[in-house]
Amino acid sequence: MDQQKIVRQILDAVKASGRDALTAPEGKLICDAYGITVPQEGLAKSAADAKKLAREIGYPVVMKIVSPDILHKTEAGGVVVGIKNEDEALQAYDHILANARKYKAHAQLVGVQVQQMVHGGVEVIIGAVTDNSFGKLVAFGLGGVLVEVLKDITFRLAPATKSDALSMLDGIQASQMLKGVRGSDAVSRDALAHLIVQVSELVSDFPEISELDLNPVFASKHGAIAADVRMVVDFAPKTPRYRPPESEVLASMSRIMQPKAVAVIGASNEAGKIGNSVMKNLINGGYQGHIYPIHPSAPEIMGHKAFKSVKDVPGDIDTAVFAIPAKFVASALIECGEKKIAGAVLIPSGFAETGEVALQEELVKIGRQYNIRMMGPNIYGFYYTPANLCATFCTAYDVKGSVALSSQSGGIGMAIIGFSRSAKMGVSAIVGLGNKSDIDEDDLLIFFEQDPNTLVIAQHCEDLKDGRAFAEVARRVSKKKPVIVLKAGRTSAGAKAASSHTGALAGNDKIYEDVFQQIGVIRARSLRDLLDFARGVPILPTPKGENVVIITGAGGSGVLLSDACVDNGLTLMPMPEDLDQAFRQFIPPFGAAGNPVDITGGEPPLTYKNTVLLGLSDPRIHALILGYWHTIVTPPMVFAKIMVQARDEMRAKGIEKPMVASLAGDVEVEEAAQYLYEHGIPAYAYSTEIPVAVLAAKYQWARGAGLL
Amino acid sequence: MDQQKIVRQILDAVKASGRDALTAPEGKLICDAYGITVPQEGLAKSAADAKKLAREIGYPVVMKIVSPDILHKTEAGGVVVGIKNEDEALQAYDHILANARKYKAHAQLVGVQVQQMVHGGVEVIIGAVTDNSFGKLVAFGLGGVLVEVLKDITFRLAPATKSDALSMLDGIQASQMLKGVRGSDAVSRDALAHLIVQVSELVSDFPEISELDLNPVFASKHGAIAADVRMVVDFAPKTPRYRPPESEVLASMSRIMQPKAVAVIGASNEAGKIGNSVMKNLINGGYQGHIYPIHPSAPEIMGHKAFKSVKDVPGDIDTAVFAIPAKFVASALIECGEKKIAGAVLIPSGFAETGEVALQEELVKIGRQYNIRMMGPNIYGFYYTPANLCATFCTAYDVKGSVALSSQSGGIGMAIIGFSRSAKMGVSAIVGLGNKSDIDEDDLLIFFEQDPNTLVIAQHCEDLKDGRAFAEVARRVSKKKPVIVLKAGRTSAGAKAASSHTGALAGNDKIYEDVFQQIGVIRARSLRDLLDFARGVPILPTPKGENVVIITGAGGSGVLLSDACVDNGLTLMPMPEDLDQAFRQFIPPFGAAGNPVDITGGEPPLTYKNTVLLGLSDPRIHALILGYWHTIVTPPMVFAKIMVQARDEMRAKGIEKPMVASLAGDVEVEEAAQYLYEHGIPAYAYSTEIPVAVLAAKYQWARGAGLL
Repeated sequence: MDQQKIVRQILDAVKASGRDALTAPEGKLICDAYGITVPQEGLAKSAADAKKLAREIGYPVVMKIVSPDILHKTEAGGVVVGIKNEDEALQAYDHILANARKYKAHAQLVGVQVQQMVHGGVEVIIGAVTDNSFGKLVAFGLGGVLVEVLKDITFRLAPATKSDALSMLDGIQASQMLKGVRGSDAVSRDALAHLIVQVSELVSDFPEISELDLNPVFASKHGAIAADVRMVVDFAPKTPRYRPPESEVLASMSRIMQPKAVAVIGASNEAGKIGNSVMKNLINGGYQGHIYPIHPSAPEIMGHKAFKSVKDVPGDIDTAVFAIPAKFVASALIECGEKKIAGAVLIPSGFAETGEVALQEELVKIGRQYNIRMMGPNIYGFYYTPANLCATFCTAYDVKGSVALSSQSGGIGMAIIGFSRSAKMGVSAIVGLGNKSDIDEDDLLIFFEQDPNTLVIAQHCEDLKDGRAFAEVARRVSKKKPVIVLKAGRTSAGAKAASSHTGALAGNDKIYEDVFQQIGVIRARSLRDLLDFARGVPILPTPKGENVVIITGAGGSGVLLSDACVDNGLTLMPMPEDLDQAFRQFIPPFGAAGNPVDITGGEPPLTYKNTVLLGLSDPRIHALILGYWHTIVTPPMVFAKIMVQARDEMRAKGIEKPMVASLAGDVEVEEAAQYLYEHGIPAYAYSTEIPVAVLAAKYQWARGAGLL
Repeated sequence: MDQQKIVRQILDAVKASGRDALTAPEGKLICDAYGITVPQEGLAKSAADAKKLAREIGYPVVMKIVSPDILHKTEAGGVVVGIKNEDEALQAYDHILANARKYKAHAQLVGVQVQQMVHGGVEVIIGAVTDNSFGKLVAFGLGGVLVEVLKDITFRLAPATKSDALSMLDGIQASQMLKGVRGSDAVSRDALAHLIVQVSELVSDFPEISELDLNPVFASKHGAIAADVRMVVDFAPKTPRYRPPESEVLASMSRIMQPKAVAVIGASNEAGKIGNSVMKNLINGGYQGHIYPIHPSAPEIMGHKAFKSVKDVPGDIDTAVFAIPAKFVASALIECGEKKIAGAVLIPSGFAETGEVALQEELVKIGRQYNIRMMGPNIYGFYYTPANLCATFCTAYDVKGSVALSSQSGGIGMAIIGFSRSAKMGVSAIVGLGNKSDIDEDDLLIFFEQDPNTLVIAQHCEDLKDGRAFAEVARRVSKKKPVIVLKAGRTSAGAKAASSHTGALAGNDKIYEDVFQQIGVIRARSLRDLLDFARGVPILPTPKGENVVIITGAGGSGVLLSDACVDNGLTLMPMPEDLDQAFRQFIPPFGAAGNPVDITGGEPPLTYKNTVLLGLSDPRIHALILGYWHTIVTPPMVFAKIMVQARDEMRAKGIEKPMVASLAGDVEVEEAAQYLYEHGIPAYAYSTEIPVAVLAAKYQWARGAGLL
């Protein structure tokens, strides 16, 4: 009988008996079926049984109560460990039964489990949980109270690969414990990884197993044995979210984002009205497709012929932007459906965010019925710069570039627009998702994945309605293009605020942290990080290796840049002797050798150029961090221009490496930083941390995408 | 005999015998003298002795080799634990002696210590070390391998107060272990604190005790017993740094920073020369005192009569700015000494930083001899805006304000100047410390402490030449004015770069972390943090309690602001029912209650004003964080002005609370943020993290200064 059949039979029996937890023997059978090593054991129905079993297994043994009604066996006094001989075994049996009866008078007592006593090595915990958003997750941590206090545990989406499992062993703070400390042996990484993978496959194959604990697992250099197994089942899993096939998602999203014709429902000639702002932005933004204002009476709006309904429009319409009060949205949406419009951009508020949940659910139903995808409601709209499309009531934005941004919150969307304009950040798209009644982050990912105008995707979100779907798409997309996410509501206070804001369930932050890493998503920890990463990452070439070198005119910046490298997980290359000598040619005798290369403060432009050319040309170096010190000898713009020259010279020879710069100096360095950014070198005034964090984000992506 | 005499006698004996470590019985005597509880014990010279002692103490006992030549007793096989009866005691004695002889053939074997076996409760470690910069430190951590792996240990300057000691118990990650977990008892905090205090006093009273370990200490609810004691002595401690009395420091620093007359040694008429830039900055900066150019031949420089030597100047001189090559500095410095000049600002480089250590030491000697204090060498000079004094070759800076900044590195100094100008940050002083041959951070603290023009002190440093002196001064000053420090070289890579830069010894970062907290210094973790804290903290009123409330127009900002509060250790006040109702009066029915107060996005200026007035007036709220969302209904400058109005109205009633703001919107929010800052409300565009971090810095100070 194959393993799945065995498990299915057991679970069917559990279901038939109306239980929601498995007995230890049932757990053992399932473990056996999935190759999860457990101690030898047997079930004793009498003290004599217990004695016999113990002799077969070999002393010492552990004895435990078996009862479907007693989950917390230790608490019930139902566990005796270290049983060393026959007398103790007989005594233990009676003792356990007596305790169990005292603990729960009417508990069904199946018997007493007699088990090989396993110990030694390192105690760990392997488990599985069912998360509301991400579904099945496998967990790993050390055993013991101290670890519990420190919350040192790590998660991965199930099923997990062997490589996922191995990364979990390194993913806890106390990972050194597994490698052997104070002369103890390292544990078998293979054996632990095997257990993790098997647990993750078991819960994936049988979604009704909602929780699973192997605790403790004794890991040694010889293997890993799960000394105790606990499984909880839930035979009524929640309905999965409706997800159209990806090809349909892409077809709809492409029509919405790159429409040949846009209707504005609620278009208006009256300044100050949302329907007027949307019209203005469409027209002044330079959108070249058809614009159809929809208005109950006006014959013409802002020079465009108006229609009473989308159904009166002669040609096809791809995108309808809604600028009408909430109560009128549903009926207009039906007309859009009848017109076979691909997407509705629902700017109006007054839905779930104000408690009008039913009104929003009505829209979802209509959308599903007519196959219209909906953005929002409660959003500012969206921008898609390659089509000169500003389908929004906010101010227009036209600096074209390769980053696609989205935000769940309108306020954050405004901050994105302000920052973009201020920092001259080139974008391909800015999208508001608001209440996310339908279109969400994974729909955007599917479109931007194949959009040649987009090289990087940066998203602000407060929840993921369907983390599993997001993870599946993001894992694939992040191999091609960096995906950066600012997950708000990281902390319990933040999560509480997120919940009051959107009614979304707060996710466990550690789960987001680990899953993002597993699927190659770069996590921004602050709004500024999201914006700075979005701006800097797309213009950086991809590094080909881990060796980072700092070249600095200011020794003080060198120290802070080194700190930032360590904080951000970058590797400062130990400087090879020959390369050290080569750098020394260009710098004053008292300049510091090694890494950072400290060229000292009073040097002319040529010293910066020579050292940077050397850094770019030596194949052992994979990325450069520049520390500039404003002096009269090398003014800021001179530095900036010579750096771009150096980069161009090497590019002409086919050599490209990521370079970032930290500029210390008077206000002229701001102009130099902007010049460098516009020429492909992310540069920051008065900061040693941001340039390094931006480079590290690129590295994180390259590692996640398997390019390093 | 008093406790000090007992210890003195023991240490004298150790010194006389030429040893650098104490035997266990010596350690025990010292512990007894200082009230450090240790197990009952005795020294056995024979197996029979051991048996007798064990009977007196009571089984179980531990037996350990006593030998001045064997420090690591376990490694030597010199420890047997769990001895339960007479037979085992006799056997253990022989066994230990045999092992010791095998381990070190010629070791002097004093005997075997028989000791009460202590166990149970929580195992902790209490120790003391001697740090190069901070001197005596006491340390505390949990025992065990896992804690070692996690490096979960905390330090305080010795002697430590009881309150310091108690803060150490809460200062480890695993502090929950001491409070009782899974039903175990909490340990006696008093007993542990007592041990920590006693250890810290012992090593302070006897500086020759260079290292001390109580490991393990068994802590339970009844008390704490140190099961093993290890002490290492060093009878040749290093010479303490020369420190003039504080009154002298203040007198000199006052003359230097607020001089009636300044000499420029190496003044020049030639543009581009450092001596020319210094003259220009002094004159154009508006300095009103006497300016004396010193030049070998010129009769006049930039309209000021020149002199061949400072000794030719008719009046007194307070400050001499050096703008001559390194090799001429020493002789000019002697002339300054003879002229009784208070301070020399040594701009020239070419000293320790280029390997010319001897040249720098010559200056130190001259400075000491003539009682001249020296700033630098290898610096940009300094600014003191209340005197319109720009004693520097860098660009002039004249925005007056209340923050005094300093930097060890010139590059960082330039970043300070650039940032200040760009952000219109008002400063009282900017000082370059460079090689710190003499004047360092604690000298500046002594001056700024009493300087009425300075409210906040912000310092960048790579090392503290004398951390102990810094700590003593900073502990006092930080009670009056916030002291913010960016300690570069936090990481080992950063420390390596710091060492290549200044030849300074890298400090253990955890020691800096803990000591800064102990003395109330706010630690900036990045250059931007240093600059943002310096700019924002002085204009914020001091909070009178921990209750923070967020009032936001953008729900999305509310979530991120909440996250930032948790990250920065701020307390979001749970909203009392009556206050919740009071806020609800002003906001739409679908606005979110609680904290954040979400007034929703489309609200007019009055809603912001009403809710902020309520927040300011309710005595249960101590600080406000504002989240603004740019809309047409409430444009950025309207918001900014109405916030300042609200603040002013409440100020007129005698109510002041710190307020910070996060502005989400288009570029106009930058102007609004600047307006708010200039009116006493630190505000930041496109960031939810920086305003909260700035408020948290103010809180951190207020807590450290005992104001909360």
